[in-house]
Amino acid sequence: MNIVIIGTGNVSHHLCRTIENSKVLNLLQLFGRIEKLPENFNQKIVYTNNLDELKKADFYIICVSDDAILEISDKLIFKDSIIVHTSGSTRLDILSKHKNHGVLYPLQTFSKNRELSFKNIPIIIDANSKKVLNEIKKISLQLSKNVIVCNSDQRTLIHISAVFSNNFGNYMNVISENILKSQNIDPQILKPLIQETCDKLKHLTAKKSQTGPAVRNDKITIKKHLSLLKGSKYEKIYKTISTEIIKLNDEL
Amino acid sequence: MNIVIIGTGNVSHHLCRTIENSKVLNLLQLFGRIEKLPENFNQKIVYTNNLDELKKADFYIICVSDDAILEISDKLIFKDSIIVHTSGSTRLDILSKHKNHGVLYPLQTFSKNRELSFKNIPIIIDANSKKVLNEIKKISLQLSKNVIVCNSDQRTLIHISAVFSNNFGNYMNVISENILKSQNIDPQILKPLIQETCDKLKHLTAKKSQTGPAVRNDKITIKKHLSLLKGSKYEKIYKTISTEIIKLNDEL
Repeated sequence: MNIVIIGTGNVSHHLCRTIENSKVLNLLQLFGRIEKLPENFNQKIVYTNNLDELKKADFYIICVSDDAILEISDKLIFKDSIIVHTSGSTRLDILSKHKNHGVLYPLQTFSKNRELSFKNIPIIIDANSKKVLNEIKKISLQLSKNVIVCNSDQRTLIHISAVFSNNFGNYMNVISENILKSQNIDPQILKPLIQETCDKLKHLTAKKSQTGPAVRNDKITIKKHLSLLKGSKYEKIYKTISTEIIKLNDEL
Repeated sequence: MNIVIIGTGNVSHHLCRTIENSKVLNLLQLFGRIEKLPENFNQKIVYTNNLDELKKADFYIICVSDDAILEISDKLIFKDSIIVHTSGSTRLDILSKHKNHGVLYPLQTFSKNRELSFKNIPIIIDANSKKVLNEIKKISLQLSKNVIVCNSDQRTLIHISAVFSNNFGNYMNVISENILKSQNIDPQILKPLIQETCDKLKHLTAKKSQTGPAVRNDKITIKKHLSLLKGSKYEKIYKTISTEIIKLNDEL
């Protein structure tokens, strides 16, 4: 199965690495806008930044930023190939000019300098026909054990969930790092707590894991905290989230 | 070193377990308001719910809710003992009627049915004199490798940081669980992402770990997400946090 990957960002980097290690999939070519293959990629990869040099493959995986998908899709001219994008929140039909199109969205946070195993990463797939979906499923199962079929709305909601759990969850740690640094306290002291926050979820739902002043509706502590945060940029976030957590009580 | 613990909640449960396993510390007695020792405690512990039966010990550790600390402190009459509370956001001087008083605040999220090793949990301590601080340090070092001296304001700010990282971080997972459940999608699919969110922090600061539409200032995706969240109780949280993350760009 010959694959061409388009884009040289973090998703592309991790996909390339996984495909290179596959016995079934073959990374035929990588396309990017920049002149040279970035250093974090295996330098043996066949690379081009010239669309006219794009090879014919079974499968084109578009790994570019959401707002560039349409532009690159319009330039692909291989009629019988399958064209997929890897975006969480871009609809399937953005690729509808292609006879065979779909989505292959890996549900993970990809950063430079973090090596990840694709094996456990859920891959959310979609396609414009059963036949194409089957082909995408075959490839996805070579990358991961966990392949899930979803339509565009469901996929966007999964992406939104990922934004809450990862982006917003991580931002809570950005805030706590900043608060501790402002006191000259080593942010490392929070690491066991952050680890346990994650470990707990192996055994409990997030709802059952919830602790702290807000879920106890401990108004005195919340007031103390807000008075120390007064005037800081974190006051509003503290208030907004606490207000929502307090309401959890009615649901528990 | 004879210790009496007051309170039968989660902190008390985990402290009792740790002290029972110590070769140096001796759990003399446990006091609680309820009639019988709860089942999750070792049933060999000497338990009372009658303050008149409280034994004389070197050390009293108050593990009750913040608003009950003053009331129980007023009832302790042992002059030469050291009295500490375990609260993150209660000032040291709430115990000032006692000649020797201090704080022993374990920085962790404690839930029932989660066995934790105290060894790696940071313990934040404070006291009304150097001599008392030294005694509290000795005991704390029997419980944990990581003992840190902080004043009341610093301790509250550490507690606030813990609220952001744990309580609010976990609430982000409550939201994502709810969104996925509403779509009949198994919330388990987010587990690898949540795990990686935590693992990343072993190698990167939270600031450098930040990914997603907000930190990219990807207005199109944010707008899509907000349109899908429109009218839901998560719309405001999504907007508030994204607005703050977008500002991170100016700092990066």
